[in-house]
Amino acid sequence: MLSSMTLDARLTPTRTPENTARLTISCPDKRGIVAAVSQFLHNHGANIIHSDQHSTDPEGGQFFMRMEFYLEGLDLARGAFERAFAAVVAEPFAMDWRIWYSDQPKRMGILVSQYDHCFLDLLWRWRRGELDVEIPVIISNHEALRADAEMFGLPFHVIAVSKDTKAQAEAEQLALLQGKVDFVVLARYMQILSGDFLQGVGVPVINIHHSFLPAFVGANPYRAAFKRGVKLVGATAHYVTEELDAGPIIEQDVARVTHRETPETLMRLGRDVERQVLARAVKAHVEDRVLVHGNKTMVF
Amino acid sequence: MLSSMTLDARLTPTRTPENTARLTISCPDKRGIVAAVSQFLHNHGANIIHSDQHSTDPEGGQFFMRMEFYLEGLDLARGAFERAFAAVVAEPFAMDWRIWYSDQPKRMGILVSQYDHCFLDLLWRWRRGELDVEIPVIISNHEALRADAEMFGLPFHVIAVSKDTKAQAEAEQLALLQGKVDFVVLARYMQILSGDFLQGVGVPVINIHHSFLPAFVGANPYRAAFKRGVKLVGATAHYVTEELDAGPIIEQDVARVTHRETPETLMRLGRDVERQVLARAVKAHVEDRVLVHGNKTMVF
Amino acid sequence: MLSSMTLDARLTPTRTPENTARLTISCPDKRGIVAAVSQFLHNHGANIIHSDQHSTDPEGGQFFMRMEFYLEGLDLARGAFERAFAAVVAEPFAMDWRIWYSDQPKRMGILVSQYDHCFLDLLWRWRRGELDVEIPVIISNHEALRADAEMFGLPFHVIAVSKDTKAQAEAEQLALLQGKVDFVVLARYMQILSGDFLQGVGVPVINIHHSFLPAFVGANPYRAAFKRGVKLVGATAHYVTEELDAGPIIEQDVARVTHRETPETLMRLGRDVERQVLARAVKAHVEDRVLVHGNKTMVF
Amino acid sequence: MLSSMTLDARLTPTRTPENTARLTISCPDKRGIVAAVSQFLHNHGANIIHSDQHSTDPEGGQFFMRMEFYLEGLDLARGAFERAFAAVVAEPFAMDWRIWYSDQPKRMGILVSQYDHCFLDLLWRWRRGELDVEIPVIISNHEALRADAEMFGLPFHVIAVSKDTKAQAEAEQLALLQGKVDFVVLARYMQILSGDFLQGVGVPVINIHHSFLPAFVGANPYRAAFKRGVKLVGATAHYVTEELDAGPIIEQDVARVTHRETPETLMRLGRDVERQVLARAVKAHVEDRVLVHGNKTMVF
Repeated sequence: MLSSMTLDARLTPTRTPENTARLTISCPDKRGIVAAVSQFLHNHGANIIHSDQHSTDPEGGQFFMRMEFYLEGLDLARGAFERAFAAVVAEPFAMDWRIWYSDQPKRMGILVSQYDHCFLDLLWRWRRGELDVEIPVIISNHEALRADAEMFGLPFHVIAVSKDTKAQAEAEQLALLQGKVDFVVLARYMQILSGDFLQGVGVPVINIHHSFLPAFVGANPYRAAFKRGVKLVGATAHYVTEELDAGPIIEQDVARVTHRETPETLMRLGRDVERQVLARAVKAHVEDRVLVHGNKTMVF
Repeated sequence: MLSSMTLDARLTPTRTPENTARLTISCPDKRGIVAAVSQFLHNHGANIIHSDQHSTDPEGGQFFMRMEFYLEGLDLARGAFERAFAAVVAEPFAMDWRIWYSDQPKRMGILVSQYDHCFLDLLWRWRRGELDVEIPVIISNHEALRADAEMFGLPFHVIAVSKDTKAQAEAEQLALLQGKVDFVVLARYMQILSGDFLQGVGVPVINIHHSFLPAFVGANPYRAAFKRGVKLVGATAHYVTEELDAGPIIEQDVARVTHRETPETLMRLGRDVERQVLARAVKAHVEDRVLVHGNKTMVF
Repeated sequence: MLSSMTLDARLTPTRTPENTARLTISCPDKRGIVAAVSQFLHNHGANIIHSDQHSTDPEGGQFFMRMEFYLEGLDLARGAFERAFAAVVAEPFAMDWRIWYSDQPKRMGILVSQYDHCFLDLLWRWRRGELDVEIPVIISNHEALRADAEMFGLPFHVIAVSKDTKAQAEAEQLALLQGKVDFVVLARYMQILSGDFLQGVGVPVINIHHSFLPAFVGANPYRAAFKRGVKLVGATAHYVTEELDAGPIIEQDVARVTHRETPETLMRLGRDVERQVLARAVKAHVEDRVLVHGNKTMVF
Repeated sequence: MLSSMTLDARLTPTRTPENTARLTISCPDKRGIVAAVSQFLHNHGANIIHSDQHSTDPEGGQFFMRMEFYLEGLDLARGAFERAFAAVVAEPFAMDWRIWYSDQPKRMGILVSQYDHCFLDLLWRWRRGELDVEIPVIISNHEALRADAEMFGLPFHVIAVSKDTKAQAEAEQLALLQGKVDFVVLARYMQILSGDFLQGVGVPVINIHHSFLPAFVGANPYRAAFKRGVKLVGATAHYVTEELDAGPIIEQDVARVTHRETPETLMRLGRDVERQVLARAVKAHVEDRVLVHGNKTMVF
């Protein structure tokens, strides 16, 4: 229990207004990459705050880097800076690269069905300023969570989905999402997305699976966990690929359970893990900490 | 991702309508207690579902027990059953005892200031049916969380507190709480409650402290943790006693942190621990799993 | 750092000389079991210290119980006491039951190959008095760990195994184990045991599998985990059945890993989980806390 | 259970013979540090494998960096390389810095009393190649662990300590340690070291404290934890300073406990945490991952 005097100071927003940028790089590993990048940033007045790197193999492997730097002091406008980086550094090293600016929050689309736990958790963290995103689109195949979305002042679209209408429903979903969002979160969305949808949406899609993948892929993992008599249940946040439950894993965690659990209590205990794991994965994605290599991720 | 066909079945309420009762006992340890209690229950048609016991010392110690049993098949009305238990079992063994019935949910009062994380978490769990309680009274010293409470259809009272008005404010709080609640939760309530209030309210009061007690008692524990350079931050749910931060501990947990944290990010990471720890403590209390002995608890 | 004065007191043995017994029961669930057992124990002067129970379903399910009680005060000799229990309680309720006495430590056989971590951990815990067992037989298919075993004063038998000699080798193993041990631990034993061996040995066999089962069944789980890019690695202790990696799970745990791991560092991190998980499973088995029901366990 | 064919490959040593160096830096934060260091390394043919950095405050704070690089390809001998680094990079930025070479393992001294768990764990990890150290000196104030040390082929010195002989004993300890070790580990050494000893030994000293500091400083932490009724017990590895239990924390962890524990079982559960925490701290120190700033550490 704190005194009321200290409270106000602590409720001031933690989102700092400082302008920073995050540079992510993937390229064939060779000597001199770190030197070239850090020299370029220094020459243009960009002070490096954080730097992480990883190489799958120093001989013939792939090199990955994430650098965060202050924009204050930069001697070029953003466009010119990016063109210069492309010419001077990125092309010679054959880099895939991208720069995200902290004053341009990512736009997050949400697909959700009827379970409210992951959904409410994301909205609450957004309201608290924990997730630096905008939420321009929420789509559900049910009406159930409309009041929750509206409580947070967010738009809520319902597009019903049945076996017969799935193609049409996905077309309507795409119309709402394309060009409006930088990534999509499936916050317990109970429909399998088609390969056409994934290609059409054109941005990363993050799913929360309610088991410790690759254990219990597919439907009803809590029931499968109950039958197998495991002593831990887990959750896995991963990028969605066309192969069900097989995309690159971003984050996982588990909770201890006992023989006293039923499928229902496993589900209840699992809910707490699911929302924590999804929130950590989304936060890492939003902060450009997740780099993908094949079906694996680096989380810096 | 589950198919939509399995979804509806899973959303049916998990709160079972079965009538059960929970008997909690504390008495000086001696031979024959378990036999006497279980024989009595059996004789009156009560089938035991769960049974837990603990003795601080088999020689001259204190004995504690929690038994859960079905009411179906009971051969006496509740009042008569309790009178019989008192006469036949409780008095010979000098027991402190109590029976709670599952069809009479506990009434939970909430005191809260401006932080929303523990508060929203409790309301969400209540709505999900995870916490089998009624919430007849919510009191805050600020307006900040009124909209949240009303979103859940719950009454919200504001009673401002300052150093000069504290006695008057506590009197108003007591008027709202006395006789209306079975226990009170301080869901990050930023005022120290007086001994008079604690005696007046007459029911258990559960607090969430934002550190791993007894480390960092008092105000600003996250700042203290930052200064000490700890590698884990924690939270502690405990019953409130007149001695600040020294009451019986119900539940604790921690989260791993690194040198990169600031007091602000420690606070953010701590929030997730706080709400988990408080929720687990409240659930254990609601299910009569927490027995108190001096400044310690047994959690069955 | 403690003062040297407090040290000696703390090094006194923690193994208490008190005589206790542990009764485990499995039977069809029906009313009155707890009352009957506790009444019987009380009538014969046995003071109950701990009691745990579980029912898979109160209607037509299976009931499991573990009771621990003091032998001091018992009015019958052990044999007579067991005969009386069989006649008065066990038979009417159709119980599978067993009584273990704390002054008769279980005899643990160990099978091990070349990895030393689980093996040394068990021997160290045995020396410390953490595991109340005798170790009459250790068998390996390699010489590698002989010096370690002999350092602890324990016998060490080497029986080489190849595809051609497997049947003969298992016969030799059985000759060393049969009637000499109450259970067997595979402390990273790198040979698959035949169904004939499992039937022949006639006692429970505990294995440690180096993954979070059912993820990564079979060989090379750390390599499989590396390929899948999981964020946690685990270990599973289970009773061995004829179906590989599918027996009842006793204990599981995990450790967090990152993209920086190689299969080799996963193995290293996994070692710490393996030995902890195996030690906890063995301790639970030794204390008769593990009851088996089909392919699942209750761990009281 | 793996087939025996895969086993041999897995037992090949994991210690790679590759020559790498680790550079650690501490200096006032200013622009251009990363660029200067990485440019210098690149110019001299050193390929960077890992790079970590932290700044306590980009404005007027302290900057810390750890870089790991391959020595193969270096265009200078080690001495010339270090002199060039000092002149070109370190002096302009006023750096405290040091380079450690992977082919020169650190020399670890161990002080231990009678508890064997942390001690044996370190020796086992050393034998396994998990800790890349040499162990030239082990000193105890008791004979108890001589056989264990000798089993691993390590020298074992006994220097008895009493209140009257402490100064003399510390002088004898210093004679064995000075110039012979690069750091010292107190693997549950039950004597308080004097400030004179700490100054005399002149290398970092790592202690394992058997509580979650700053909870339960001082003697008998498990007894204090028992009295307070905590739900977790912990351990803390820290560098030793003259102020007891107040040095910079390197690593901490906890284990869950219940009301059933006694001070003895808390001690047993704590042992597993202690040895894990100490091993992780020692490994981080050995790999030059721990940088100290005031009474706090960065662990890269």
